[in-house]
Amino acid sequence: MSLWRLDAAAPLVKNPMVAADPAPHRPADAARWVARDAEVVWHGFTQMAAYADNAPIIVDRGEGRELIDVDGRRYFDGISSLWVTTLGHRVPELDEALRRQIDRIAHSTMLGNGNRIVIELAEALAAVVPVDSPHLLFASDGAAAVEQALKMAFQFWANQGVAERQTYLTLGAAYHGDSVGTLSLGDGGFGTDVFAPLRFSVVRTPGYDDPAWADKAVGVLRADGGSFAALVLEPLVQGAAGMLVADPADVRRVVDQARRAGTLVVADEVATGFGRTGKLFASDWCAMRPDILCLGKGITGGYLPMSVTVACRRVFDAFLGDDLGAQTFSHGHSYGGNALGAAVALEHLRLLQTGAVLDNVTARAGQLASLLSEQVAGHPAVAAVRQHGLMIGVELAPPRAGLYWGRQVCAGTVRRGVLLRPLGDVVVLMPPLTTTAGEARRLVAVLRAALDDLTGGDASHGQPVGDGR
Amino acid sequence: MSLWRLDAAAPLVKNPMVAADPAPHRPADAARWVARDAEVVWHGFTQMAAYADNAPIIVDRGEGRELIDVDGRRYFDGISSLWVTTLGHRVPELDEALRRQIDRIAHSTMLGNGNRIVIELAEALAAVVPVDSPHLLFASDGAAAVEQALKMAFQFWANQGVAERQTYLTLGAAYHGDSVGTLSLGDGGFGTDVFAPLRFSVVRTPGYDDPAWADKAVGVLRADGGSFAALVLEPLVQGAAGMLVADPADVRRVVDQARRAGTLVVADEVATGFGRTGKLFASDWCAMRPDILCLGKGITGGYLPMSVTVACRRVFDAFLGDDLGAQTFSHGHSYGGNALGAAVALEHLRLLQTGAVLDNVTARAGQLASLLSEQVAGHPAVAAVRQHGLMIGVELAPPRAGLYWGRQVCAGTVRRGVLLRPLGDVVVLMPPLTTTAGEARRLVAVLRAALDDLTGGDASHGQPVGDGR
Repeated sequence: MSLWRLDAAAPLVKNPMVAADPAPHRPADAARWVARDAEVVWHGFTQMAAYADNAPIIVDRGEGRELIDVDGRRYFDGISSLWVTTLGHRVPELDEALRRQIDRIAHSTMLGNGNRIVIELAEALAAVVPVDSPHLLFASDGAAAVEQALKMAFQFWANQGVAERQTYLTLGAAYHGDSVGTLSLGDGGFGTDVFAPLRFSVVRTPGYDDPAWADKAVGVLRADGGSFAALVLEPLVQGAAGMLVADPADVRRVVDQARRAGTLVVADEVATGFGRTGKLFASDWCAMRPDILCLGKGITGGYLPMSVTVACRRVFDAFLGDDLGAQTFSHGHSYGGNALGAAVALEHLRLLQTGAVLDNVTARAGQLASLLSEQVAGHPAVAAVRQHGLMIGVELAPPRAGLYWGRQVCAGTVRRGVLLRPLGDVVVLMPPLTTTAGEARRLVAVLRAALDDLTGGDASHGQPVGDGR
Repeated sequence: MSLWRLDAAAPLVKNPMVAADPAPHRPADAARWVARDAEVVWHGFTQMAAYADNAPIIVDRGEGRELIDVDGRRYFDGISSLWVTTLGHRVPELDEALRRQIDRIAHSTMLGNGNRIVIELAEALAAVVPVDSPHLLFASDGAAAVEQALKMAFQFWANQGVAERQTYLTLGAAYHGDSVGTLSLGDGGFGTDVFAPLRFSVVRTPGYDDPAWADKAVGVLRADGGSFAALVLEPLVQGAAGMLVADPADVRRVVDQARRAGTLVVADEVATGFGRTGKLFASDWCAMRPDILCLGKGITGGYLPMSVTVACRRVFDAFLGDDLGAQTFSHGHSYGGNALGAAVALEHLRLLQTGAVLDNVTARAGQLASLLSEQVAGHPAVAAVRQHGLMIGVELAPPRAGLYWGRQVCAGTVRRGVLLRPLGDVVVLMPPLTTTAGEARRLVAVLRAALDDLTGGDASHGQPVGDGR
């Protein structure tokens, strides 16, 4: 098979604007839609007082790796619609899988009953996830998958009468979601501090930004390993922290120590799963097999909300008991195991497993590493470039606080037809897995141009140019 | 318009089995699928050791208000696929809306950007929700909508420098979801007690099973109203508690007192929303306008995961501030505002608003009240029948604990081609909003027959008949 869909249905970006002077323009249609939007929609992680001024794209449709706004302008989807899109938009095979399932059923409950397409998906996932004899509990939001995991780990010990394992070992810089349980596992700094009175306490060791993080985690596990229900971590890449990358051997070492301490290992691969790192799962890089694995985002190729908590046999077995009894895991979301989502996810997994997609990730990751090294890493506005596979963080180096450089650089790429969204002053590049060589070149060229806007194109740390729109 | 889709595309159930002797039968195909299912799927709220023995239906497809299993057997969907299905399965208009959206785009991120179909849906919802000048923050799981609400209410006060409103007033018997935050708001008894060390504390007054609940809630609000971030309640019906029904005037009285105390009001209408009670929202019965409203389940007609937190202008405005500043609500799920879900939800709302569907709910609710009164309420196996609209709980009266009567009655209806699922010893009837008069008659007749199985068909509290399968 030729490299899947790179040359065919999903056209190369026409790129009409990359060479042109970036000129703020806001045709009547887009402005009208932005105003309507701001009147009724509350956007997540968005200061709504500034929403309309930050040049939002109002998407009307998509094609391949491009988003097309209400004025017909095209944008390369450089963040995979916030880390979910894998193959692209309007992938014929995925669309067709969805249409077939519409003709069967959209949804039926998984509480005490089953659905054929969900069984088929679960079997297909069970064959590839890095978990021993897995059972899969579906939900929709990624945070829900992590909530399920943390509750499973907690009840796992309670069901066996172990009273002393009631806390979690978690990492600095960790992000696991926005619900109260996942906020508790996550570190501060994502607007979470205000909610401190609602969070349960955990034990936290440093994150991947500390070169000694693994030694320190091993030390805590040696000293207090018997007190943890689980070690919870994002294997290999702490994404929301700004793409902090760990040495796979370090991750493996910490996981091994958790095993020796009898602590369960929960891997949150909501962001890293489904090819983003160049393997199907980040755990594969680390040669680790978590007891509980959380998946979401890419599971449906970016089409539909679906998440899943994958438990190994040992965890699953601890919940077996009398019907309706206290050993039961009393947790289940109404739309967990949605049939339409399952149909797309099943076809998506089949496409991923053909190999061509992951090969492309490897090729593009190498190409982007070179391009970023040549054109971006040494830029005076850039402090560091971090990358694993197609998860890339470009950390900016603003000369003082409050300049909103992350915001400004992304506004500059949007003006040039590339959708990016920063994490503070870290510009995230997370292009779809099927990105072509030409698109990768354009992505870096556009980023470079937007960086030059900040510094006037030379090496001086100048004042920001323009108003960031 | 004639009563929507009641006589046309969605056929009346053929009902081949209702008069026949219930005979356990498990053809090879179903048994094989159940075994495959149990090998890889973990079902929510299900004791997996007993899963295969509890005669699960493995759904292959749907048609109107019927589910069709892998052996071609048809089941009337008497629980609306766990309270989500409204109009039925494979509704032509909803299927078509989905197909149209597939040809545009499945999903694009709502973080800092917008999508046309989501704006259209938000506008349509804003026009009908009982919330003043609403803004809508989308998620996928219902629990996520409640997590968003509880965090909004908490930060609402923090953003205004009010330090003393850090707890919630919640009700006994309340259920708001399974994540740590929603578990904290909910009462014990849903398998939640084991997680007590993870939950934050709340102030709880009695639920709708206490006739004096409103007086007591008003009393607490009078005494301590200044300490609550919000009053959180399920208006009118506490569903998961077993369909406990409140007097709308009582609900209104408590809400009014919360207002006088300056406390925000969070209405969890994930279960009651979108016509289930005979009006579009239960809040409408209570003539109340919550500050924050949580919706899910029926929002997409039961097709796709979608939930939303609706905030009034006063709440929304408290989060306005500097771009990227601390006033911002730092919460957002990757798939919040999914375009496919939005397309279905928009068409679904249009169909609901034609009026014929809600008229049918009223007619069927009246008919079912009569039928249940005649055939079920006085049955020796029945302790009470509770109902509002098409939310019905039939509480059984087992002579002693451990008989699993709820389980057995539902197994009996499943054998007769009607899918029901109990909440402990409360049999829930929640047929789709488009249920016909004939289907309603059959639903009650089948329930009656299953009740007779328990008691040998006479008035004696006999031993259970059969093995419950």
